[in-house]
Amino acid sequence: MAMEKAIEKARHTGVALSAVRNSNHYGIAGYYSMMALEHDMIGLSMTNSDILVVPTFGRDSLLGTNPISIAIPAGKETPYVLDMATSVVPRGKLEVYDRNEKTMPEGWATDEKGLPTTNAGETLKNLAARAGGGILPLGGLDEEFSGHKGYGLALLVEILAGVMSGASFCDQVYPKDESGKALPAQLGHFFGALRIDFFRDIEEFKHDMDVLLRKMKESRKAEGRDRIYTHGEKEYENTVRHNKEGIPLHPKVINSLKEICREMELEYLL
Amino acid sequence: MAMEKAIEKARHTGVALSAVRNSNHYGIAGYYSMMALEHDMIGLSMTNSDILVVPTFGRDSLLGTNPISIAIPAGKETPYVLDMATSVVPRGKLEVYDRNEKTMPEGWATDEKGLPTTNAGETLKNLAARAGGGILPLGGLDEEFSGHKGYGLALLVEILAGVMSGASFCDQVYPKDESGKALPAQLGHFFGALRIDFFRDIEEFKHDMDVLLRKMKESRKAEGRDRIYTHGEKEYENTVRHNKEGIPLHPKVINSLKEICREMELEYLL
Repeated sequence: MAMEKAIEKARHTGVALSAVRNSNHYGIAGYYSMMALEHDMIGLSMTNSDILVVPTFGRDSLLGTNPISIAIPAGKETPYVLDMATSVVPRGKLEVYDRNEKTMPEGWATDEKGLPTTNAGETLKNLAARAGGGILPLGGLDEEFSGHKGYGLALLVEILAGVMSGASFCDQVYPKDESGKALPAQLGHFFGALRIDFFRDIEEFKHDMDVLLRKMKESRKAEGRDRIYTHGEKEYENTVRHNKEGIPLHPKVINSLKEICREMELEYLL
Repeated sequence: MAMEKAIEKARHTGVALSAVRNSNHYGIAGYYSMMALEHDMIGLSMTNSDILVVPTFGRDSLLGTNPISIAIPAGKETPYVLDMATSVVPRGKLEVYDRNEKTMPEGWATDEKGLPTTNAGETLKNLAARAGGGILPLGGLDEEFSGHKGYGLALLVEILAGVMSGASFCDQVYPKDESGKALPAQLGHFFGALRIDFFRDIEEFKHDMDVLLRKMKESRKAEGRDRIYTHGEKEYENTVRHNKEGIPLHPKVINSLKEICREMELEYLL
């Protein structure tokens, strides 16, 4: 509703922003930003989230993986859709490494002392217990590879989605009462829509978008690489394939769907 | 002028964006975003720039270091001022390593094959000759540490500052005629201003900003670290010190100022 409102208002004013408070799990950031595409607008979407990320030089996870998504239409090319956690990796990546008992690359996470760790299982355990350590911001540990920039982007999302909206932020987005019982979530989101034709003729804009995106894709590849992507291409190609061939489901998901069907006394039809 | 116009328009509409084309060197991105602070607004500023950055999996530098700056007022705390190149490091860092004949950390740049290099001098030479290779986007090489996110942010700036403004982009921002002679620069910039009190009471907002920024700064430090910064703090403290004690100048800068004075037949008074 907040994204629809931003699009509706931007139709008249050229640009509109909206914020949400008292919210719960966001789903996919790109879902909202992409709503702007069919209106020839640029869409913006971001949310704060459960604290998993440590600030640069910090020991405790204080920030969410706080995703930012921006969607921008093109002409014949796939629209540009950035949809990124502001951490170096999302939590799900650590869970995969833990399940497969794989060693993480150094630079993804820190241990309870705030020092680099390659142990995904320990990191997840420390996060759950709030024992210290967590996922590093985009750019990694300290300032050598500019971890302070990812930390800055995570903080930006916390400000716009959490503070600007009047929602909660940091450790207060999933509040608990004194006995430790979970209270309703207090997440915040931030949306925007921007009419391109207030700046430029929309066909000229789309033409130049195609030129820019092709410049990336058609340029020379690094040794050992055979393709350069633009943002949203992989997901677009998956969508086309899944619309045609169906969506592959993990056996565990199928079992859980069957389980739900039994519980609800429904017929499992897949 | 474009930033002033955005601030002026935002006074009436809550939010305003502006773009500039046919421009030249930008100076400091944070200078423009910070103009919004005294109006209790959030300021946004970005520019495209000379091509130094390679896209993920690419061999050629196609994007600028494309800085983004966002300034947000706080109460008693230093305002949040993010001012970041979307590359892992700016070009100046490579120049310092080259001058001091230091080996760069692996993950800052690639060579003419698009493979990691630690040689700053070679990288700068290759960039000047457009021989291939360049500075890596924030997140570094390939997708392991999410270099595609920095590449996405650099592309975003190229779109908003370059395409949206109707300026040039990529290799066309510093165009040359057929003989190789430099033509006027065609850079583009993008600005925004946002009235906070259209969302929340400004004093409540600033109070919560202070709470959020202190949460970062007062949290436990990683082992071996004694301070957590928020964005803009270091620069703010330098400004205060330099206003009091004067601005330290590199001997080379002093010599060049003296040289200019002689050329212009002016007295050197420092």
